[in-house]
Amino acid sequence: MFEAAEVGRSVNKEDYIRDVAELRPRLLDAQMALRNADFPLLIIIGGVDGAGKGETVNTLLEWLDPRYVETFALTAPSDEEAERPPYYRFWKALPPKGKIGIFFGGWHTAPIVERAQRHIRRDEFERQLNEVAAFERQLVSDGAVLLKFWMHLSKDRQRKRLRSLEKDKQQRWRVTPADWAHFEMYDRFAEVSAHALRRTSTVEAPWTVLEASCRRYQTLTVGQTIERAIHQQLSARVTQRNATAEAAVQAPEPQALPPTVEAANITILSSLDLSKALPADEYDDRMQQAQGDLNRLARKAAKRGVSTVVVFEGVDAAGKGGAIRRITSALDARQYRIVPVAAPDQEERRYPYLWRFWRRLGRGGTFTIFDRSWYGRVLVERVEGFCSVADWQRAYAEINDFEEQLTRRKTVLVKLWLHIDQDEQLRRFTERAETPWKRFKITDEDWRNRQKWPLYAGAVNDMIERTSTEIAPWTLVESNDKRFARIKVLETVAAALQQAL
Amino acid sequence: MFEAAEVGRSVNKEDYIRDVAELRPRLLDAQMALRNADFPLLIIIGGVDGAGKGETVNTLLEWLDPRYVETFALTAPSDEEAERPPYYRFWKALPPKGKIGIFFGGWHTAPIVERAQRHIRRDEFERQLNEVAAFERQLVSDGAVLLKFWMHLSKDRQRKRLRSLEKDKQQRWRVTPADWAHFEMYDRFAEVSAHALRRTSTVEAPWTVLEASCRRYQTLTVGQTIERAIHQQLSARVTQRNATAEAAVQAPEPQALPPTVEAANITILSSLDLSKALPADEYDDRMQQAQGDLNRLARKAAKRGVSTVVVFEGVDAAGKGGAIRRITSALDARQYRIVPVAAPDQEERRYPYLWRFWRRLGRGGTFTIFDRSWYGRVLVERVEGFCSVADWQRAYAEINDFEEQLTRRKTVLVKLWLHIDQDEQLRRFTERAETPWKRFKITDEDWRNRQKWPLYAGAVNDMIERTSTEIAPWTLVESNDKRFARIKVLETVAAALQQAL
Repeated sequence: MFEAAEVGRSVNKEDYIRDVAELRPRLLDAQMALRNADFPLLIIIGGVDGAGKGETVNTLLEWLDPRYVETFALTAPSDEEAERPPYYRFWKALPPKGKIGIFFGGWHTAPIVERAQRHIRRDEFERQLNEVAAFERQLVSDGAVLLKFWMHLSKDRQRKRLRSLEKDKQQRWRVTPADWAHFEMYDRFAEVSAHALRRTSTVEAPWTVLEASCRRYQTLTVGQTIERAIHQQLSARVTQRNATAEAAVQAPEPQALPPTVEAANITILSSLDLSKALPADEYDDRMQQAQGDLNRLARKAAKRGVSTVVVFEGVDAAGKGGAIRRITSALDARQYRIVPVAAPDQEERRYPYLWRFWRRLGRGGTFTIFDRSWYGRVLVERVEGFCSVADWQRAYAEINDFEEQLTRRKTVLVKLWLHIDQDEQLRRFTERAETPWKRFKITDEDWRNRQKWPLYAGAVNDMIERTSTEIAPWTLVESNDKRFARIKVLETVAAALQQAL
Repeated sequence: MFEAAEVGRSVNKEDYIRDVAELRPRLLDAQMALRNADFPLLIIIGGVDGAGKGETVNTLLEWLDPRYVETFALTAPSDEEAERPPYYRFWKALPPKGKIGIFFGGWHTAPIVERAQRHIRRDEFERQLNEVAAFERQLVSDGAVLLKFWMHLSKDRQRKRLRSLEKDKQQRWRVTPADWAHFEMYDRFAEVSAHALRRTSTVEAPWTVLEASCRRYQTLTVGQTIERAIHQQLSARVTQRNATAEAAVQAPEPQALPPTVEAANITILSSLDLSKALPADEYDDRMQQAQGDLNRLARKAAKRGVSTVVVFEGVDAAGKGGAIRRITSALDARQYRIVPVAAPDQEERRYPYLWRFWRRLGRGGTFTIFDRSWYGRVLVERVEGFCSVADWQRAYAEINDFEEQLTRRKTVLVKLWLHIDQDEQLRRFTERAETPWKRFKITDEDWRNRQKWPLYAGAVNDMIERTSTEIAPWTLVESNDKRFARIKVLETVAAALQQAL
């Protein structure tokens, strides 16, 4: 893997000056075009110590307009970050569409270092490499240009570099015992890195291995690669847009039920027994009991740094608000947060879909309630055509990966679908329309959505099929009877906490 | 994952008759269109025992024109197959473009069964699931429509089914103790299957989980899904072709050097010391020694069922033929095979690129020499534009996966690049042109390829960078001196065998 980067590449000064003079205006032009484009550029700079990563980036920043570039040197996660899933900080650092983000190291660093030092086993290493590949696939599917450079220095050159620094009185201080200790690990690091690079060199985002033999060569190559990648993606997006436009003319995408639902016209929702109900006195007893349990368990979870995420989804007027209030009234106001989710705003639209949910994740021990959630993509956005078919289809795997990260990082995840039938919905809509203080709750859109009931039911069915996983199952809540629904919600959340603690 | 397939879906007889009457002509129409299309259709039928897999496929075959459908029930691999990497039999069974292949079970079956019975550990299970996903990605990238159906029967229904068969005097024989033993494993299987389905439900090839509650429902859904998928892919291919044509007009793909090479204009090949040579007497001694070693080691390998695959690549006139003859003259003629690789023929072009190499893999203990190989895709096909950019770019990962399967299945893999410089090539070309019995060796094409030397060197550089892996490294052979080259080739092969045995 690295032998092609140990051949002594260099660029002489004259050629360098000429090529840079030619490159710089084209690079700035690319950056200007990028600013108005609908994709970001991510540059990962990885590789061994002393391979000139810093110098390369510094030169690059001289060539670019630095106002539209952000640089991140992500070393060890902060306390704050360590309390969230590992990719939290990468999501937080993602550049929006039109901008450039440069990462010294990145999501590959931790798996490589941990494995080289034998802190993690082979299977955990492979799992983390899968995570890397899935994350990058998500970025690229969303349009990002992802350029990954690995700066390589042969063992021999590394040794020479350290020796020559030591000989130089001015520079001697630069060489610490830790540097030599790292050097002793050279072969191990090289072996682990080669494996990681191979496993994460995908079509979408291959690694470019760069020989760190000559700074001029390194910087020039990085610059040329960036310029070319931006221009290529710009013209690819034009072609793609034309093709999409053409496809739209040729065959307008029909709104369709999922195939499993179509033939029998039965979804998982049809199987619910919506007649389930609770009498008032039983309700009162059980509610008191459940709220007490919840309060006790939530405090215990907070103490232990275990976070809780409760996702509320459901048909309109199914009673999400009422159920949420029954939960929060059992909790301490300083501990919980409710995140109401509506259509993404202009800023949020400049990032991959899941970005706005990642940034809402609380520190360890927090209790977060999502009133609607990341499932919007496979529900309303799918049914209403707010995103492309490819977008919602890939969302299932992306959501599962996201939830896997959540549950791995000591998080109790409860996903609730509150369901009522069409008659009950009509009754509640009418009541809302007729009751002055409830009128704000009902809009024309609610009536429009109601028309698409079968399509929504089909989308829910697919959602359950694809995302009710062993790590994060869905709970369907029969909600025609509000008392029954609320008790089921509280008891489900309490049971999940109980099991995790 | 399975809860959406336990809701009691069914289709009544009337609806079924009406829907089938409507479906059948459209299905046949789709199949006819497929016959002239440039992609195959693969249907995987997975799921639990007694879920009606056979019945569904039988009905489907009544609806389709069975002449263009092949059905495979791949159970345990045969002796012959077991001596090759596990995917050999799947590659062998792939339908060509225009045809339909139906697989009862498939590449998912072994990982699930082995894991459910705890014959493999979690990390090996995950590795195999990665292999599944990579294989399917390769098929789909190549244009295949891949439909995966999982027939699900709830535990309760499974129990009822077995009990009712037992009660029926006519059917009692159908229920064996093994059936009840399987039933005891139900939960374990369900858990492992759910995980496997989640991990292999990709955008390209999601699973459709089908409730095995009603045969009419199952068959109808499978039929409708197939019909829809074929028609969708047909129109997608049209759009894609138009877009490609448009892109070609807009921006003709320039032949370019890889970025790492461009700046310094040095490839890994430039670093070779081609002046290396051997005097005749040393050559004779070492050749005798090496051939003796090779003979002994090859016999030992054959005895142990260890296969050897030697890949020869190199510039024209670098001396591949001569080196190959020095190997074969040390071996028993019954043991080795030489596979000369030229451009794919018409049959081969109906399959994914690697198909023709998979089928050439020998049984355990065979010694196979590839005179040119699967690397054609990233060399000649890339440089000459015989395949799309996306095709050769994804080939690196596909080749690495292929070679990983080879080396896992007791195969010693040696990859040799024979290199001469341009002056030496010119000398050899001229000599060939002037020597009557060598004239057949030199064609106009050789002279044309020579013009593209830098592009080929760039492609070789990328090839080494991306595919010289820890499991299958490349050996570069300095070949200006034939004696030096031949000795290096033989000694490299012998050393690889020595190390493996």
